This record gives sequence, structure tokens and C-alpha cells, in this order.
Amino acid sequence: VTLDEPDAGGVPGRILVVGAGLIGTSLGLAAGRAGAEVSFHDRDGDRARRAVGLGAGSAVLEQLPQRAAGFDLVVVATPPRAIAPVATSLLRSEVGPIVTHVGSVQAQPQREIEANQVSMARFVGGHPVAGRELSGPEAADADLFRERPWVLCPTADTDPVAVRVVTALARACGARPVHMSAPAHDELFARLSHLPQLVASALAASLSAVEPADVALAGAGMRDTTRLADSDPLLWAQIVAANAPSVARALRGVAEPLVALAGLLERGGDDEAAAAVGALVEAGRAGRSLLPGKHGGVAAALATLQVDVPDEPGALARLLDTVAAEGVNLEDLRVEHAPGRPLGLAELVVAPDALHDLAETLRGGGWTVRAAGGTAL
Amino acid sequence: VTLDEPDAGGVPGRILVVGAGLIGTSLGLAAGRAGAEVSFHDRDGDRARRAVGLGAGSAVLEQLPQRAAGFDLVVVATPPRAIAPVATSLLRSEVGPIVTHVGSVQAQPQREIEANQVSMARFVGGHPVAGRELSGPEAADADLFRERPWVLCPTADTDPVAVRVVTALARACGARPVHMSAPAHDELFARLSHLPQLVASALAASLSAVEPADVALAGAGMRDTTRLADSDPLLWAQIVAANAPSVARALRGVAEPLVALAGLLERGGDDEAAAAVGALVEAGRAGRSLLPGKHGGVAAALATLQVDVPDEPGALARLLDTVAAEGVNLEDLRVEHAPGRPLGLAELVVAPDALHDLAETLRGGGWTVRAAGGTAL
Repeated sequence: VTLDEPDAGGVPGRILVVGAGLIGTSLGLAAGRAGAEVSFHDRDGDRARRAVGLGAGSAVLEQLPQRAAGFDLVVVATPPRAIAPVATSLLRSEVGPIVTHVGSVQAQPQREIEANQVSMARFVGGHPVAGRELSGPEAADADLFRERPWVLCPTADTDPVAVRVVTALARACGARPVHMSAPAHDELFARLSHLPQLVASALAASLSAVEPADVALAGAGMRDTTRLADSDPLLWAQIVAANAPSVARALRGVAEPLVALAGLLERGGDDEAAAAVGALVEAGRAGRSLLPGKHGGVAAALATLQVDVPDEPGALARLLDTVAAEGVNLEDLRVEHAPGRPLGLAELVVAPDALHDLAETLRGGGWTVRAAGGTAL
Repeated sequence: VTLDEPDAGGVPGRILVVGAGLIGTSLGLAAGRAGAEVSFHDRDGDRARRAVGLGAGSAVLEQLPQRAAGFDLVVVATPPRAIAPVATSLLRSEVGPIVTHVGSVQAQPQREIEANQVSMARFVGGHPVAGRELSGPEAADADLFRERPWVLCPTADTDPVAVRVVTALARACGARPVHMSAPAHDELFARLSHLPQLVASALAASLSAVEPADVALAGAGMRDTTRLADSDPLLWAQIVAANAPSVARALRGVAEPLVALAGLLERGGDDEAAAAVGALVEAGRAGRSLLPGKHGGVAAALATLQVDVPDEPGALARLLDTVAAEGVNLEDLRVEHAPGRPLGLAELVVAPDALHDLAETLRGGGWTVRAAGGTAL
């Protein structure tokens, strides 16, 4: 099979998106803005019509076409379990569109398609690393993928033209394409994404063992650490089941040291326990310093300013007005509110070179300001 | 031993705070504002002088007085390991001040003091459930304890007058006193506080096994779940070592099911794995729904509005101006920024009765607004 090269670097002209959820609809919005003609198919025809109604495409296909002959590219944006059946049906014919998907797991769908003995020349797995806590076409956003990684997983048999076409789609959506094998992808995202989901869920689940009235004594730390636990059980069941061996390894990497620490806390002396806990918290600080900031830099390269914010309407707005008047862009903003406290703590994460002038301006405006982590101001 | 009852409901008149850190200094500020005369002692005399310089007290004692005869109440605000030695020295004499502390652990300091065979009549352990990620007197805040729980742990031998005095102190600081036995306190805070700290640290530590360049592909979920991992290793070593059996139980309660899940992911079929993961995520959602909101109500009683925020100076301030102009008080604010995305997602947590009008006003102002969790708007 040889594929026709589309316009150099251009986004494929005619795209069929299968699955009108958050990701599929966002992709339709982004690709459409870049000039593509986008059609939608969804098992739930009403959902496809809503995506098109939101401007994400121009046509709804009630049936999934067997050959999809009129399309350059089909993007399978379904839950993980549906990827292989849909992709296989599209890859059965000798000629046809390039097929990609946008799932959080790569190796299992690829293996399932290969097992169906279709040609992999036109297939490239893909995973735009983007999302939000909402789902459905109404939550879609043409800028969802901007500056986000978009991992592409070509198979050994994928035609280079197919890789270029899907890479062009990722670029057209504003993303940063990254190439990786499917197993490497799954191993990495088991650690970066599937693991924190399960850890947050397990921690949140442990609250059910506490008297509800006593849970009211929990602070902000428990809330932050369990924020991911609000996620969709059915979607995560499919993602983790499809990446079981890598997730199992990642789980053991975190949970077994915690079980070992429990054993040491049961048996060990105070000094031994303290040393083990100190080493764990220290290792956590080191690991956390590797996390990227908003623009992909490491967190350590950003500066954090802490500001007291009275608990009254408008206080935070006044603060952010002052920040905006300085022309300072916030890399991240976090507002910590202990239940019922009249003062909250706003953390403004800014470029280091903006820190001192901003601190001075805020102090001049009567705000109480500190640098986080002991940075001198 | 019979203690003199202070003025009914009033804060004790003369307080000595031992340890001029964040908590001790905040307590001095709050108690001073309520009319108490506060003195400080700290092993680091300079730190005590800084606390007094900040207005948290009126005098610095260079030496810890053996009997502290001139004081009604001594508050030991040192790291956990120093609580018992300091409290014991103050409880040796037949008469003297009431002694409390503000540590994150209760049973071990109490046992250590009891082992020294001093009278416990004048002793009440205490734990104001408040803090911030900063430490030192400069981070202190007279409102740190306002509306926060303040757990008091009287011993079997504590004189009721001592309990009333420390309860009055907690009230004078604006806190909500809660009485509990020391073991019940430690069991509860092992789950609510010590456990999430260790889980966040272990998760963050696991990032060191990932290539640094690959960590850059992590999303906001990993960042939220590991936020606590920035904490102080030495302080946490002391806290956990002093509450080892309860923390061990709490750790096993979260880590052992994760190890079991890893085993199931290694052995089980897809359906079995999916069912187990779905059940875990579902249990996490149930546990998380128990967490309190800002004013101590349950999170489910609050409504969340999601708003798109362009990544430009002033955008968030404009949003919050609009919220303030409506007279709506934010219960919580969270801004989610995927690295480099021009649109951020602001989550405004408000009282449910404010939701609809606010959504309408924001829409009128050109903001893209959604209710989180599928609430109709």
C-alpha cells in the first residue's frame, strides 16, 4: 500500500471523527478552524448532531461507513474498548483513509487490530495529552490541545505518509507531536496518569471508613490529594484494564514501599521510623521538583508569591487587578481557604524575573506578601 | 490539686508560649488580640524576639522557667519530640500554670509525660487543625485558627478547670473546640492528615524513576495529587514516628488494596480488572463526597461553576470582578492551567442558590460557563 501524500505539512482535508465526546468534538473544532472539512459519527446520533451544532463539523453520518472512501483520515475518539473494532472495520479494505485514535492506551488496541490481520500501513495510534474533568461535546474547546503533548505511536508497518498526516493534524490542533512506541507510551502513562488516578481514588475511598462527622475535621491537604477521585469510573475501568501490566508495575512501585513503611512503623523504633519517613518525604520533594510548570518548564524555574486575601467579595479580584496592571502573567494561581477562615492564602506563580517588582507593588497596595519556600524578596 | 477558675469564659490572662514558630506566633497574636499578656521562650532566642517584634507578645524569656509561677497557662508549641520534656519540666512542681501543647500527635507526648510520674491535673493536650505551607514567625496570622477545629485531649486525671481554660483559649483564638481522647485523635488524624502526606510523597517519589524529559508529559492530575509532597521532611518524620501504629494501619488500608489490585491486574482477565477498577473509582467518589467545603458543610452542598479564562493578564481579574459585583462570595476557587494552553478553566465554588444568577451574569458578560458534574444551569 502506498498512500498519497497530502499537501506538505497541511492538515488532511476531509476528516471523519468517530465519537462526539469531549476529545472528538474539540478535535473537530480545532481541525475545522485549521481548514479541514469534518464529519461526525457517534453511536448516539444525537450527540453527533450536538457536536456539529456546536460548529465542530459540517455533517453527521448516521452509519459508520464500511470503507469511508470519501475521507483522508478517520479519528476514532471512542472509549478504549471500541477503538479496535472501529479501526479494524475501516482497515479491512485495501484502500481507504488513514486511521488514528485518541485513546489513553495504545498497545492493546494496536494488538487487537493486528490480531484481526488487517494491514497496519494506514494505522497510527495517537494520544493527545489533554482533557478536563468534564465530558461530552458541550465541554469541547478548540484550544484543548494547544501546546499540549500529542503522542503518536506508529507501528512497525505504518506507512511514513500516515505518520506525517497525523503529525500534521496534531500540529494543526496546536499540539506538540511526540513519537513513541505503543509499549513505551503505556509504561509512561501508567506512571504519569493511570497511577495518580488510582492512588487518589484509593485515598478518597479510605474516607468511608471514617465517621462522616469526623471527616469534617479534614484540611485542604486531603482535598488536593483526592481531587482526581471525582473521575468517571467506567472510562477509568476501560483505560486501566487495557494497560493492566504497566499499571500493576506502577502501583507496586508506590504501594509496596508504603506497605513496607507500615511494617517498619509497626516493628521499628522511633528513630528508624523517623529516618524512613524523612527519606520518603525527601524523595517526594525531589520527584515533585521534576514536574513541569504551565509552559513546560520545570516547576523549580518558577517563583511563587504568597498573598493574604481577606474572605470577602472582591478581595481576590482586587489582587488580580493589581497583578494584571503590572502586566504580569500568572503561570499558576492557587487559592487556599481553610474552612471559614477570614483570610485565604493566594499563591501567585510567576516568572522569577517578575517576582520582586510584583511583591513591591502588592506591598505598596497594602497586601501582605511572602515568598514561598524561603526565597528572599 | 485544685486549680483556680479564671474569669468565666475568659482567656487566661498571662500566657507563656514555648516555641515561636508559625503556630506559636499565630497563637500569641490571636490571644493577645483577645486581651491576654503573652510571653515567648524559644531555644532560638532570636526567633522569640522576632515573634515579639511582630506583636505576638510583650516579653522574651531567655531561659525556660522551672516553675513558670507567673503564668496561668503555658502553650508548648515545639516540634513533637520536644513536647514531653518541656511539659514535664513545667509539671514537676505541685503548683504552677496549666500546660497545653499544639502538636499534630497526642498520645505519645501524653504517655511520655505520664511516664515521668508528674501530676496530669494541669495538663491538656491540644491540636489546632490549622497551618500553612510556610513556617516561622513571619508566616504567622492572628486569624489562622478562625473557624478551624481545635481538638482538646484531656487525660483521665486532667482537672476540669484546665480543660475550661484551654477551651477558652481556643475560643478566644476563634477556633471551634472539639474534645476527643488522645488515641482517638491520633487514629483520626493518621487517616485525615498523616496518610495523605505519605501517599503524596510516595507518588511524587515515583517520578524519579521516570526519565526527566518524559516527566514533562505529566498533566495537572499528577501535580494536584502530589502537592503535599513539598512538605518539611524533618517535621513529618517526627509526627509519623510519634503516631506509628495508627499511621501504619491507615497506610495498610490504602496501600494493601492497591497491591491487591496490582495482583489482579497481573493475573485477572480484562473484565475482572475493569470491574475492580470501576469499583475503586466509584468508592473514591463516595469517599470524596464526604469532604467538607470551606465553611465546614459537605462539598456536595456547594455548587461549582466552570468558566473558560483566556491566558492573558487581567482575564481572571475581570472574571472575579464580575463575581464580586454580583456580591457572590467564593467558597473555593481553583484555576486549572494545562501547560501553555491559552484557555484555563476556572472553577468557582459557590452556594447553590447563587449559581444560576451568577451563571447568567457571566454569560451576559461573554464568558463561557458550564456547571460541573452535569448540574443543569
